[in-house]
Amino acid sequence: MNYRRSGRLVDMTNYFLNHPHKQIPLSYFAESYDSAKSSISEDISIIKEVFEYKQIGTITTTAGATGGVTFVPTVDRKDTEKLIDELCYRLEDPDRILPGGYLYMMDVIGDPILTQQLGKIFASKFRKSKVDAVMTMATKGIPLAYAVGNHLNVPVSIVRHEHRITEGSIVSINYVSGSQKRIQTMSLARRSLKPNSNVLIIDDFMKAGGTLRGMMDLVKEFHSTIAGIGVLTEAVNEEEKLVNEYVSLTKLTEMDSKQRKIKVERGSIFDNPFSFGEL
Amino acid sequence: MNYRRSGRLVDMTNYFLNHPHKQIPLSYFAESYDSAKSSISEDISIIKEVFEYKQIGTITTTAGATGGVTFVPTVDRKDTEKLIDELCYRLEDPDRILPGGYLYMMDVIGDPILTQQLGKIFASKFRKSKVDAVMTMATKGIPLAYAVGNHLNVPVSIVRHEHRITEGSIVSINYVSGSQKRIQTMSLARRSLKPNSNVLIIDDFMKAGGTLRGMMDLVKEFHSTIAGIGVLTEAVNEEEKLVNEYVSLTKLTEMDSKQRKIKVERGSIFDNPFSFGEL
Repeated sequence: MNYRRSGRLVDMTNYFLNHPHKQIPLSYFAESYDSAKSSISEDISIIKEVFEYKQIGTITTTAGATGGVTFVPTVDRKDTEKLIDELCYRLEDPDRILPGGYLYMMDVIGDPILTQQLGKIFASKFRKSKVDAVMTMATKGIPLAYAVGNHLNVPVSIVRHEHRITEGSIVSINYVSGSQKRIQTMSLARRSLKPNSNVLIIDDFMKAGGTLRGMMDLVKEFHSTIAGIGVLTEAVNEEEKLVNEYVSLTKLTEMDSKQRKIKVERGSIFDNPFSFGEL
Repeated sequence: MNYRRSGRLVDMTNYFLNHPHKQIPLSYFAESYDSAKSSISEDISIIKEVFEYKQIGTITTTAGATGGVTFVPTVDRKDTEKLIDELCYRLEDPDRILPGGYLYMMDVIGDPILTQQLGKIFASKFRKSKVDAVMTMATKGIPLAYAVGNHLNVPVSIVRHEHRITEGSIVSINYVSGSQKRIQTMSLARRSLKPNSNVLIIDDFMKAGGTLRGMMDLVKEFHSTIAGIGVLTEAVNEEEKLVNEYVSLTKLTEMDSKQRKIKVERGSIFDNPFSFGEL
């Protein structure tokens, strides 16, 4: 195929979107399309202009022999507000009320495209936090954690309650679940997180934060640091939180099982006006 | 922003990639860019040409008032062979040998970008199978299942061994695990799969196929049908398989714990020359 500019723009856009947070040498594109580097530079400035105008992401250029271009996904604040407002509305359906103050959320977590969109919000928020790995708790945190890892281009470590033979040697800790004050165990395969990693913890639901607190302790056991904590939904008006610094996409502010009434609002990620893709 | 052709191509490419298997009216693009439908049609034929040449996917046009354009992701056969051959090589590392004939694979499953690429292979293979939902078993099947669901734009149902209070009413079945001949239980939330769905079952590892057999029975309990079965790795030379029709990406043909030797080959998906994105 003889690539003219239009063809290159389509193919390069696809390539950038599939390789976030990865430095790509200009020569890679120049060789792929048998084009001069100056033409490729012009292509990239067109893509960059659209990506930044539509808040799809930023494209930064590093000069020099080892240089190249890097695509970093961001999200548009208005689109994000609309997405989260629609999600809040969906979550307020009283049919979601389950015993014990829980909310049925599997339809939300079970939608891979919505999950990708939600994951991109955290990836945008923490895009400058030098995240090395995402950590989550099995089972329900996994979809969102993978979406975040996908847009940050980092691996995901899955913490579990049970031990499995298929994981090799594991590191276990005991922790106190915040809501029920029960002692529980969580474990992570030794091989699944490199020491000295900067870890972004992602989970689907936070009540008192006991599980998140446990994951923070587990990160320390791997001689690693916390890059941040993100949850899909936090329940407010609960007992005191065991975790201080976290961001949520939505807040469950009221759940009355008797009156069958739920109120869900935008989460704390909206508190900071510069949380999103603003340049 | 005043969109010229180059800008529209970048933005439309991004839009298509984020909305697979979804019919988009031409008027959506025409209004977004304040452009004539004839210009949009020309843009789409440029994108279509590149997508088909690079085996990124197909773009089909449906005429009429309710018509529009639909992007369906495919994969390139050569790229896929290269990806799977590299994966086979990685999996042959003897350090992966775990007790009981298992292979440590969390580093593979834990890589979200690789998982997306692997999921796209199944999404391409089953793109004409009218899949309504993807089903998988917690925990290790989840990442691959979400990647498949993402590229097919269908929801994912997560089957579990334990019951959780946060899922509401559930449907449970007993099944016999193929390798250990033990009776086990698996369950799925009643709400997480609509009746009369055509279900694609995805899992990470298959020995005798007992878990897959159980999921097939569970699909029937939901008055639904099987669209297909896909596994990341199948162990061959095991006892007789409990499942007949499935496709695998890789085959574990030899694992000698004493000699510390593993052999992994391309899976059955490569048996059929038209499995991939061939047009």
